[in-house]
Amino acid sequence: MVKEKLSEQQLKELQRQLKLYKQGVQEIIPTEELEEKLAKSILLNKPLKIKLGLDPSAPDVHLGHTVVLKKLKQFQDNGHTIQLLIGDFTGKIGDPTGKSIARKPLTDEEVKHNAQTYFEQFGKVLDMEKVELHYNSTWLSQLKFDDVIQLAGKITIARLMERDDFEERIAFGKPISLHEFFYPVMQGYDSVVLECDIELGGTDQHFNVLMGRHFQEKFGKTKQIALLMPLLEGLDGVEKMSKSKNNYIGINEPANEMYGKAMSIPDELMVKYFTLITPLTPEEITEIEEGLVKRTLHPRDVKMQLAKLIVQMYHDEEAAEKAEQQFITIFQKGEVPEELPTMTWTGPTSITIVQLLVDTGLLPSKSEAKRMIAGGAIKIDGKKIITDMETTTISHNMIVSVGKRKFMKLLLKN
Amino acid sequence: MVKEKLSEQQLKELQRQLKLYKQGVQEIIPTEELEEKLAKSILLNKPLKIKLGLDPSAPDVHLGHTVVLKKLKQFQDNGHTIQLLIGDFTGKIGDPTGKSIARKPLTDEEVKHNAQTYFEQFGKVLDMEKVELHYNSTWLSQLKFDDVIQLAGKITIARLMERDDFEERIAFGKPISLHEFFYPVMQGYDSVVLECDIELGGTDQHFNVLMGRHFQEKFGKTKQIALLMPLLEGLDGVEKMSKSKNNYIGINEPANEMYGKAMSIPDELMVKYFTLITPLTPEEITEIEEGLVKRTLHPRDVKMQLAKLIVQMYHDEEAAEKAEQQFITIFQKGEVPEELPTMTWTGPTSITIVQLLVDTGLLPSKSEAKRMIAGGAIKIDGKKIITDMETTTISHNMIVSVGKRKFMKLLLKN
Repeated sequence: MVKEKLSEQQLKELQRQLKLYKQGVQEIIPTEELEEKLAKSILLNKPLKIKLGLDPSAPDVHLGHTVVLKKLKQFQDNGHTIQLLIGDFTGKIGDPTGKSIARKPLTDEEVKHNAQTYFEQFGKVLDMEKVELHYNSTWLSQLKFDDVIQLAGKITIARLMERDDFEERIAFGKPISLHEFFYPVMQGYDSVVLECDIELGGTDQHFNVLMGRHFQEKFGKTKQIALLMPLLEGLDGVEKMSKSKNNYIGINEPANEMYGKAMSIPDELMVKYFTLITPLTPEEITEIEEGLVKRTLHPRDVKMQLAKLIVQMYHDEEAAEKAEQQFITIFQKGEVPEELPTMTWTGPTSITIVQLLVDTGLLPSKSEAKRMIAGGAIKIDGKKIITDMETTTISHNMIVSVGKRKFMKLLLKN
Repeated sequence: MVKEKLSEQQLKELQRQLKLYKQGVQEIIPTEELEEKLAKSILLNKPLKIKLGLDPSAPDVHLGHTVVLKKLKQFQDNGHTIQLLIGDFTGKIGDPTGKSIARKPLTDEEVKHNAQTYFEQFGKVLDMEKVELHYNSTWLSQLKFDDVIQLAGKITIARLMERDDFEERIAFGKPISLHEFFYPVMQGYDSVVLECDIELGGTDQHFNVLMGRHFQEKFGKTKQIALLMPLLEGLDGVEKMSKSKNNYIGINEPANEMYGKAMSIPDELMVKYFTLITPLTPEEITEIEEGLVKRTLHPRDVKMQLAKLIVQMYHDEEAAEKAEQQFITIFQKGEVPEELPTMTWTGPTSITIVQLLVDTGLLPSKSEAKRMIAGGAIKIDGKKIITDMETTTISHNMIVSVGKRKFMKLLLKN
């Protein structure tokens, strides 16, 4: 037990860090080893290596990602080393079965570009200058068939089939290609190469993160600890926040958009959001929670506090203030906000609404425009558009609105 | 249908070859394709490529192997190309789990030496000058991890688990390491590289040989045909002939040994042996079979014919004649053969029987000597030895015998 060798002050530091890292965590496997590793790190004044694996194909960072990023930040603030691992090797391979068109192989340039996009966004949470960047193609692309066989000899089929999604697909008779068994193997091997002390991930990474422990042990290395964070439900309150479910708040979104989206977080998730993605202390959060239970706090006010906090984190105090004001103006007073984006209209004066929505850049495509009209989301000067066959005549200061938060004021040239 | 384009003479040739290749075969998958491939080969005067895979770790060739070799010989005699594939890649890897001590990695030199040993023995059946030799390490060792992933993407876990031994081990909860799934994959990929038309094997190779078809199809190549031969039971009449079961007749064994062993082939297997490992025609074999049924032939005489034929194939007419004579002398007349191996004894004159058996080289170990004494197999000058405690005094011309076929005459110096 290294702990016994610590001075009183060091012991205090150990307790402080342990308490911090355990905040909001879903699972630590195993907790005792975390304490031991931390104690050793403090005793020898040697930072721990904390790994986070990233998929290079989807570099849009949203609040769901920040759950893990915030946890990384705590480690970074205490002097530990963050290892960001871009899993570019699989990205560059693409889908060998050729079934998934979406999984085209990424080029080196795409990988670099996507990684860059990640890092710019991560910079809003982490001090990127202190972060180690790794690409697993560095070592994986060097492995030859006999290395792969040696690696594959260190894990059983039964162990791999324990992964939930594999188990499920086997149960339902859905095919699994042999190469898919290598994805967790690679992730485990990455930890061998990087000699990670701790790997972070969402609870959905439970199996994959434990592969790191497995392979490190097989390669005679010290085993990493799995630190798994809860998954953040998205704005629908049901599914994990993700881009594909369109239930996310991106950390690069404009302040008003961010604030508005945050106001649609379900009430019952507010405390979870405070806990996992804001810098509030456990004590502050408990206070809010109690206020809600005792009804001394109005849920709407609490949500406005959350929305403002989120904008503040990814923009600034001023932007948060403005976003709040705009929200109050539109929703609480039912008005159109004062400061609207404007566009000087140079197109035809008579135009279909569908074309107008696309030409103003409010919507990406005609089909999307038709869908939004059908959904009753489009208004011109406050009048709802009923059919996508409709044509309009552009007038000066005409306001086109999409849903409750997107506006465009058209200006005609002199 | 290529067949329709053949001349009458070519059609006859097609029928002749087809009939020949089908002799003694257990399974052809699929038969129609064999006919089509052969027809094409005859029409274009282009030889087919016939593959046989060999394990480089066990180069002792016995009669069990000759079942397939004889079939290969038929193809060779008709001008087709034999591809002998030494599976040295896996041999060089050894056992990555480290569990099997027996499966040490082979060095390049061991592989070459073992292959050489194979070829010398195969030369007794095939014309080795016309045979193509391939080592699968040539291409497999060049594959990198991404190639392996591409390869693995072409086969499902479910398909691999169909292999009998995998299925069984899964059913009994015995672990299978991930690398083991690659052995059939490699065998399949070898056929892709070699562009084989037909792969031969024993019925126990059913699954592995079909992998060739599978991967050739996935790589957009013409699919090979699986031609599977029955397994030859060994001298025990039960288990497949193999070195590890010690129920085999090696094709390099001395003529007398070979003849004697052949005489212990169970009666009910004689016809199978004639069919699978001798050059007798189906008509000649039918005649023997009928003779045995009608009792116009004595099983002992038939077996002597079989034994003589076997010695003739792997030694010569003269050796076969001599072996037969010696057999008659010892077993039918109960005499010790005239020509005995001799040894000039330089050891102590008083010695335990156990030590004597080891020192004369008749038996490999003391434990084996004790076992043989217990089994009543040891005689000195015709007198059976009862206990392994016994000591003897060496005399000039003393004859030590092990079982019915191993003798040593001891000579004392002057």
